[in-house]
Amino acid sequence: MLEKTTRMNYLYDFYQSLLTPKQQSYMSLYYLDDYSLGEIAEEFNVSRQAVYDNIKRTEAMVEEYESKLLLFQKFQERNKILLKMKELLTEKTLDQQTLLDAVSELEKLD
Amino acid sequence: MLEKTTRMNYLYDFYQSLLTPKQQSYMSLYYLDDYSLGEIAEEFNVSRQAVYDNIKRTEAMVEEYESKLLLFQKFQERNKILLKMKELLTEKTLDQQTLLDAVSELEKLD
Repeated sequence: MLEKTTRMNYLYDFYQSLLTPKQQSYMSLYYLDDYSLGEIAEEFNVSRQAVYDNIKRTEAMVEEYESKLLLFQKFQERNKILLKMKELLTEKTLDQQTLLDAVSELEKLD
Repeated sequence: MLEKTTRMNYLYDFYQSLLTPKQQSYMSLYYLDDYSLGEIAEEFNVSRQAVYDNIKRTEAMVEEYESKLLLFQKFQERNKILLKMKELLTEKTLDQQTLLDAVSELEKLD
């Protein structure tokens, strides 16, 4: 059984444009619309095994893209910094230097 | 003749990890080290035309990746916002709301 993870949801979101239409359909139904493998198989009139193999290969593909482009990893790092900035910006006295440092960190991430 | 552009320098930077070692070598020598097509041909003992064709195909590939992933476009948009934030952060009185808006804009870009 494949494991439906938040990570794969994100990876699919970042790399779906690099997938074929069929890969997109299976992944989208499985991860976004929470279909089961059996339901997808029925929908496309193919075997459950065919759907499983396709999704498994696609998962490996997007993990390979992530290892090369790190879009999800950088997204998480950026998010952490942005969250910190929002906290800093709601304080009464703004810490100018720490905010400038956060901007520099964001620049380095690109 | 290929045109050496700043854009292609950036695109190569963003997508080089998706290219083959040979594509990386040619592109890197041509765009980063400013070799001529003839010099690369000599280095690799192939025809100038072969180098030209390879680089031309690689350029099309990275443009295709950019059309799908928009990494360079988002990088530019992020940079504009970060520049604005740095300006705002060096003013005497910090504009809290405008800074928070900038953070929101950055969040939307991911």
